Amino acid sequence: MSIINGAENIWLDGKRVPNPAEHEAFKGTFQTISKLIQLIDHDEVGFDDVSVQRKVHKAFLIPKSLEDLRSQRQAYDTWAGHTFGMMSRLSDYAYSLITGYIIDREKFNAYDSTFSEKITAYFEEVKRERRLITTAISDPQIDRSKPITERPEHALLHVVEENGAGIYVSGAKMIATGAPYVDDILINTPYPHEEGQKKYANFFIISTRSPGLRIICRKSHAEKDKELYPIASQFDEMDAVVLFDRVFIPNERIFIRGNAAGVTAAHRHQQLNALAHYQTVVRLAKKLTFIAGVTTAIAKSIAADSFLHVQQKLGELYMQVDTINGLLKAAEVEGTVHSNGVYYPNAVPLQVARNLGTSYYRRAMSILKDIGAGGFTQLPSTAIDRFEEEKLQSLMTQYYAGATVSAMQKTKLFRLGWELIGSEIGSRHDLYERFYTGDPLRIQGLFFEQFDKTPYEERLQGFLQKIQNPIYEGVNI
Amino acid sequence: MSIINGAENIWLDGKRVPNPAEHEAFKGTFQTISKLIQLIDHDEVGFDDVSVQRKVHKAFLIPKSLEDLRSQRQAYDTWAGHTFGMMSRLSDYAYSLITGYIIDREKFNAYDSTFSEKITAYFEEVKRERRLITTAISDPQIDRSKPITERPEHALLHVVEENGAGIYVSGAKMIATGAPYVDDILINTPYPHEEGQKKYANFFIISTRSPGLRIICRKSHAEKDKELYPIASQFDEMDAVVLFDRVFIPNERIFIRGNAAGVTAAHRHQQLNALAHYQTVVRLAKKLTFIAGVTTAIAKSIAADSFLHVQQKLGELYMQVDTINGLLKAAEVEGTVHSNGVYYPNAVPLQVARNLGTSYYRRAMSILKDIGAGGFTQLPSTAIDRFEEEKLQSLMTQYYAGATVSAMQKTKLFRLGWELIGSEIGSRHDLYERFYTGDPLRIQGLFFEQFDKTPYEERLQGFLQKIQNPIYEGVNI
Amino acid sequence: MSIINGAENIWLDGKRVPNPAEHEAFKGTFQTISKLIQLIDHDEVGFDDVSVQRKVHKAFLIPKSLEDLRSQRQAYDTWAGHTFGMMSRLSDYAYSLITGYIIDREKFNAYDSTFSEKITAYFEEVKRERRLITTAISDPQIDRSKPITERPEHALLHVVEENGAGIYVSGAKMIATGAPYVDDILINTPYPHEEGQKKYANFFIISTRSPGLRIICRKSHAEKDKELYPIASQFDEMDAVVLFDRVFIPNERIFIRGNAAGVTAAHRHQQLNALAHYQTVVRLAKKLTFIAGVTTAIAKSIAADSFLHVQQKLGELYMQVDTINGLLKAAEVEGTVHSNGVYYPNAVPLQVARNLGTSYYRRAMSILKDIGAGGFTQLPSTAIDRFEEEKLQSLMTQYYAGATVSAMQKTKLFRLGWELIGSEIGSRHDLYERFYTGDPLRIQGLFFEQFDKTPYEERLQGFLQKIQNPIYEGVNI
Amino acid sequence: MSIINGAENIWLDGKRVPNPAEHEAFKGTFQTISKLIQLIDHDEVGFDDVSVQRKVHKAFLIPKSLEDLRSQRQAYDTWAGHTFGMMSRLSDYAYSLITGYIIDREKFNAYDSTFSEKITAYFEEVKRERRLITTAISDPQIDRSKPITERPEHALLHVVEENGAGIYVSGAKMIATGAPYVDDILINTPYPHEEGQKKYANFFIISTRSPGLRIICRKSHAEKDKELYPIASQFDEMDAVVLFDRVFIPNERIFIRGNAAGVTAAHRHQQLNALAHYQTVVRLAKKLTFIAGVTTAIAKSIAADSFLHVQQKLGELYMQVDTINGLLKAAEVEGTVHSNGVYYPNAVPLQVARNLGTSYYRRAMSILKDIGAGGFTQLPSTAIDRFEEEKLQSLMTQYYAGATVSAMQKTKLFRLGWELIGSEIGSRHDLYERFYTGDPLRIQGLFFEQFDKTPYEERLQGFLQKIQNPIYEGVNI
Repeated sequence: MSIINGAENIWLDGKRVPNPAEHEAFKGTFQTISKLIQLIDHDEVGFDDVSVQRKVHKAFLIPKSLEDLRSQRQAYDTWAGHTFGMMSRLSDYAYSLITGYIIDREKFNAYDSTFSEKITAYFEEVKRERRLITTAISDPQIDRSKPITERPEHALLHVVEENGAGIYVSGAKMIATGAPYVDDILINTPYPHEEGQKKYANFFIISTRSPGLRIICRKSHAEKDKELYPIASQFDEMDAVVLFDRVFIPNERIFIRGNAAGVTAAHRHQQLNALAHYQTVVRLAKKLTFIAGVTTAIAKSIAADSFLHVQQKLGELYMQVDTINGLLKAAEVEGTVHSNGVYYPNAVPLQVARNLGTSYYRRAMSILKDIGAGGFTQLPSTAIDRFEEEKLQSLMTQYYAGATVSAMQKTKLFRLGWELIGSEIGSRHDLYERFYTGDPLRIQGLFFEQFDKTPYEERLQGFLQKIQNPIYEGVNI
Repeated sequence: MSIINGAENIWLDGKRVPNPAEHEAFKGTFQTISKLIQLIDHDEVGFDDVSVQRKVHKAFLIPKSLEDLRSQRQAYDTWAGHTFGMMSRLSDYAYSLITGYIIDREKFNAYDSTFSEKITAYFEEVKRERRLITTAISDPQIDRSKPITERPEHALLHVVEENGAGIYVSGAKMIATGAPYVDDILINTPYPHEEGQKKYANFFIISTRSPGLRIICRKSHAEKDKELYPIASQFDEMDAVVLFDRVFIPNERIFIRGNAAGVTAAHRHQQLNALAHYQTVVRLAKKLTFIAGVTTAIAKSIAADSFLHVQQKLGELYMQVDTINGLLKAAEVEGTVHSNGVYYPNAVPLQVARNLGTSYYRRAMSILKDIGAGGFTQLPSTAIDRFEEEKLQSLMTQYYAGATVSAMQKTKLFRLGWELIGSEIGSRHDLYERFYTGDPLRIQGLFFEQFDKTPYEERLQGFLQKIQNPIYEGVNI
Repeated sequence: MSIINGAENIWLDGKRVPNPAEHEAFKGTFQTISKLIQLIDHDEVGFDDVSVQRKVHKAFLIPKSLEDLRSQRQAYDTWAGHTFGMMSRLSDYAYSLITGYIIDREKFNAYDSTFSEKITAYFEEVKRERRLITTAISDPQIDRSKPITERPEHALLHVVEENGAGIYVSGAKMIATGAPYVDDILINTPYPHEEGQKKYANFFIISTRSPGLRIICRKSHAEKDKELYPIASQFDEMDAVVLFDRVFIPNERIFIRGNAAGVTAAHRHQQLNALAHYQTVVRLAKKLTFIAGVTTAIAKSIAADSFLHVQQKLGELYMQVDTINGLLKAAEVEGTVHSNGVYYPNAVPLQVARNLGTSYYRRAMSILKDIGAGGFTQLPSTAIDRFEEEKLQSLMTQYYAGATVSAMQKTKLFRLGWELIGSEIGSRHDLYERFYTGDPLRIQGLFFEQFDKTPYEERLQGFLQKIQNPIYEGVNI
Repeated sequence: MSIINGAENIWLDGKRVPNPAEHEAFKGTFQTISKLIQLIDHDEVGFDDVSVQRKVHKAFLIPKSLEDLRSQRQAYDTWAGHTFGMMSRLSDYAYSLITGYIIDREKFNAYDSTFSEKITAYFEEVKRERRLITTAISDPQIDRSKPITERPEHALLHVVEENGAGIYVSGAKMIATGAPYVDDILINTPYPHEEGQKKYANFFIISTRSPGLRIICRKSHAEKDKELYPIASQFDEMDAVVLFDRVFIPNERIFIRGNAAGVTAAHRHQQLNALAHYQTVVRLAKKLTFIAGVTTAIAKSIAADSFLHVQQKLGELYMQVDTINGLLKAAEVEGTVHSNGVYYPNAVPLQVARNLGTSYYRRAMSILKDIGAGGFTQLPSTAIDRFEEEKLQSLMTQYYAGATVSAMQKTKLFRLGWELIGSEIGSRHDLYERFYTGDPLRIQGLFFEQFDKTPYEERLQGFLQKIQNPIYEGVNI
């Protein structure tokens, strides 16, 4: 039995799922997450929290030094390691956001004077109950050519009624990755709004068991057969659309209410996001390491790693990993202690890593395809030892053998490769890494705008001055 | 009931498939092919053959003029049109090869004096019985670093015994696309061999019902639900490995026996391949046209086609189609009548189209991913009208709507897009188009070697001469 | 002495050039163009014109059939062949535009009732006097973020005064390629304008000897030494900015006056542009053929053409040429006779070829760099036989030798390669091919908008219908 | 007058250069290097050396800690900063190699027992006299298809005679970047050789004033006009081929003599190379920073930085810089103290940075071209204020203006951009960054071979074990 609760009102294949933890589509992932939660009791992942008197995830640690940050990294590394980077929205991501809000809670009081009190209460609750959390920000993209402000009311999540105890909201949020497995979803609608449209501008956290909430799943990629689909059967975190039909949000879970500037600030807060991106990039590094390993093994199994152009491609995978690790390292050691005493990682290398990530995974998949090539197409439909004829098994053992490995091992490797490049869960990861940060072109536009271009300008000015004046005038020679 | 026979001894998921035409994994494709066969009785696809006194596929037409070639194209266009280019190895490909052998049958007698007589008999039989055919050439690639000649005996299909009536062969051939649906497989082993290794060098055609032959399928991508998986349910042509365990080949089906030069000539014959590549490229054009249409419709459904960078990508898809069509046009009008009176298409533009094809389809899939983006991830797991709650259907109708289309239509388009970019059949097509011609790098090396570089050298020589001498000396001015 | 006149008031390196035909920066190109003009008297390039009673360039032929088009191509091929495609704006381009205007002169009367009469008179004059012509359309791009309509008056060429005999204009036009060598420049300002801004909307042809006109050249790439810089010394066609300081345009050369719809129609006229693009693409094919030849020869000279990855890159260059040729072929044979009896080439393949061209040349240069690689950097500063020490010449002959060619030949080839990839004229060609059609992104957006997407939609509709209905219902079987 | 000596026997344009420091082609660079040398007396670049009793370059510092490494970096940063990264082979590169040999001098005694004594003597001499050094390793590539061992004798630098005082060598070395400006060249021939071919296997340092040595320059890109060509006029470091015609090498400068294993070890020594690569990558970062600044300023000058696709490209340039900086950071903080007490930077991130560098610079140039686009082609041939007509200057001031800058400033920026993307020195940098490490494909093959793949295999093994066993068995929960 699972030690986690998960959501209610989950819809899959046209039906409501009565008992998700026992349903074939969710079972494996429930088990995986349950075990991750148990790891909190181990020092790699958890630390002793004074206020709740138990071990809590290190994502809740407020880092005061480089050592604290690295301790936190150990926790992210451990969870990502146990899932091979293939689960992208485990709760440690949302936890790090909550921690960010806790750090700056006083500042956010400027937008809603109850912020500090409420976030503190929630923080304690989450730690105590080990609640699982995901996030959902985007509204339905019905017409991408229209700016947010020209969309009809129903296209944005909005307040339909309010009373002394809270508000009722209707609308939809896409995409809430991991929704079936969590207790709470952090909801925000951070768009610029006109005056008088306070009904859209709310930042709250909602229980996945709220009446009126429906979680609409994409097709489940989880498969019964763990041997044939080891990734899907254990690590399908599910993506879902969340529909709100007059859902009640109690006051204590509404952190910023009716304040457009506030909800946008809550979404774009750079230091806070640096903490969360740190987790994201640690996870990315683990995933790329795993892919590099699988691809190397496949190349080796058919002795393709003796070709120069294959070596070049494998080398490219290693360079992906080292580049992301280099950026992580830079983010860590170039971190700075802010006036609040918090040691934040440097945000820029993390943004660079995220931007590179949007193209790295796709490129890695392309390399895996190129190296396995026709080998994926000739893969038998099931494991060799399941064939119901001994003679046939022995023929297959002969003809499916690799250069350095047996037919059993070679087909197992290619099956894993196929799951990555050819299965539905594999394709979903390709899309996820490319688009989870948003439209890459727009994200890169934002990166450009926020980027501090001063050093570049200074160098250029230095150069232009040199044209007029002999160099090193200042140097007394 | 299917009007085609298909193979025996087909293995899927570890079991032998007793009645393929009724099996869920094969049924849809049996129906599709049956209908294509019936189209032979129509003038678009068939022509009246004098010798067998019935309509036969125009792939069997020996073209004597540009008009003949275009008549043949109409047949290829029609079959590819009915399958949207998503079936890559329909029998018209193998038919065009057989026609090529018929044209040059006298020449091949130089390698085996019985060639002409046997191929003629087979030609008549195929036309009369409308036998379906595929091809299988590659042997297992156990160790890609080893040249063919260093591989162990079992790694190449070889003769294990012979008698007056024929030969017995053992070994394996990968990949026989479409094998479960055909009557015959054209088998060749066109590698350079040392003297005394005649056992490898045979070109024959084998019935898929031969004792000792086993057809090992990859996983079936066919799905029961035609609405959710329209491509897989109708057009999964299947890829298979063919295992030979002392399989008997009667003399009359062995066209070249024990002659290495002969089997290589039979495989590399340029004019013959030009006829077959013509079919291949016509099919490619149809597929790219289909993809361009799907992608355009998806962009339009969410009004993404108003963005310049999306327009640029859609334009790239149209340019793919026009480029392939331009090369087809050049192959047609630059064809030449050989001394045997046959009008062959120009081989070079067809080779260029095939080379471009190895990267075009992958690029098209990448564009489709970029344009649909997160829309694919938020797609509900089944059709909206299958959801068992009326309220939910009405909410979904609202929130999944597109800019120009209803929620039902939009999700249908994205489901089709997802099948192309995200499903297992989609991934198989991505691999197929990239690798069916062989390792692209080596194919391109071969293209380089065979390419007539004379005109390039002449232009350069002309230039170099100009440096020394004033230009237009010849022009009396 | 040159048989062509060229412009007056040409400015180079801060000075006015008194006698361009004798100036080192222009001399070689004057000679080249003079010889091309003389070729008009030969049947490859010219045809006997009845009205002017002499041979005129075939660009002035109004094609009535595929044969006419091909005869025209022969002329384009000949000029482009003599200049190796390295002169992009020879007068045959502008001639083909004039021919297009002549064909549709009656239609253009709708915008200016004097059009037909004036263009006819000009047509005869150009043919009779063999006047040379280039075009200039773009105004200065001072602020790319501002739409045309928000720019200040001086940013667009405009009328400052008018009288009975004509108009006076001020402003600037960028870029008039070839301006120093021509007699006339075709000027247009085809932007949408508000009512009452007729002063911008004029389409006229101006003599390069008009008072008040100044031609500001970019740096000349022409070099004195024909052996070291064979391309720059013969084929630098020069790019120039044309400044208008109250320049008078006589009525007879103003074809459309003060009519925004008219000048835009004159610029965007599809059939007319198809005739001109036909010339452009023929020229592109010649250039790519030349580059493929140079690169092949360089690879061969150091025996790099035995490497698979080099073969792949050379093959890519051949595929560029064959693709452009295929599109030309399609444009020719898919041409159509319009109601006016003119046989126009199909515009779409020509647009595709132009779009591909914007990336092909840059890619070709990248391949040439990759293949020559360090060989370009170690090239001696001048020809080996110019070294003033015999001993040194003999050492160089030994150490600079190639695999298949002598040191003299190898260094000559690499010097030519360096001129293409490394010299200023080479870099200018890289920019030219990329941008001469305008901003590639916007041109591709325009291509998207104008493209007939109906066939794509039809195929998709066919597919979607199949999902509901069994296929081939219409086929009676 | 220059404070540096430079070489003798320099050949340019077919002539021997009598007094390089006063020659237009070399003067500017002599001045630049002279000033860099003077900076050694400043604390950013130099440190007080006990043995030679004067300040020496920090490249001669043997780093014992991260702080030492960073102090060294400050020196590299300063030199690269003063030359904007545009001089790639300043002597600090060779100095760091010498330092590496000093560190491991005892080990190299295994190949030549005199190594330690000789390198120490040379080390002191270089420091004392501030000798300038470059390196030359490659032999002429006459036939790239032939392995080294099949080349004729003259194709490799070899001993032609020896006596008690030293050896006489003949042959050629390509490419000795910076040769005209240095005192010494470090020469090695690190190929695997057969037994008995000791004549090739020598590692020595030769004075550029040795009789019989000839330095053959490529074309000089230095220009007289500092305003129009600020880079070429100050920073052309020159590439040269060095011809040896019976050149005498005295014993004290032959460090490894006739030992193939030894000369290969001296070339491939990983820690030693890590020290040198550290300098190289610091320089690369400076150059990319400069390019990013120029490109940003050009985009801003015409307000192109408001377009999303331009922002995306500028962002890509910033990401290049941050990626290289991240890898530098990782190399620094992941350095390790070896048994000899030396703190070496981690070699792998430096190799990754170098590999990325081979494509980054070319990509940066492509972005600069795309952003400046037609603006480069319409650039006037000289500075506006040099035009000999006041009226014209005023017209140009109007029409060449930018969105945010004056015409003078805009044309200055575009001229700088053009020098980078369009001039011969610019093209040389494009080639240099791509190829200075050797053939990128082979370098990447080497990277693959040397790369420690263990962590990848371990992760994969971990995954494969999970398929069989429930996860976290080891975790007692």
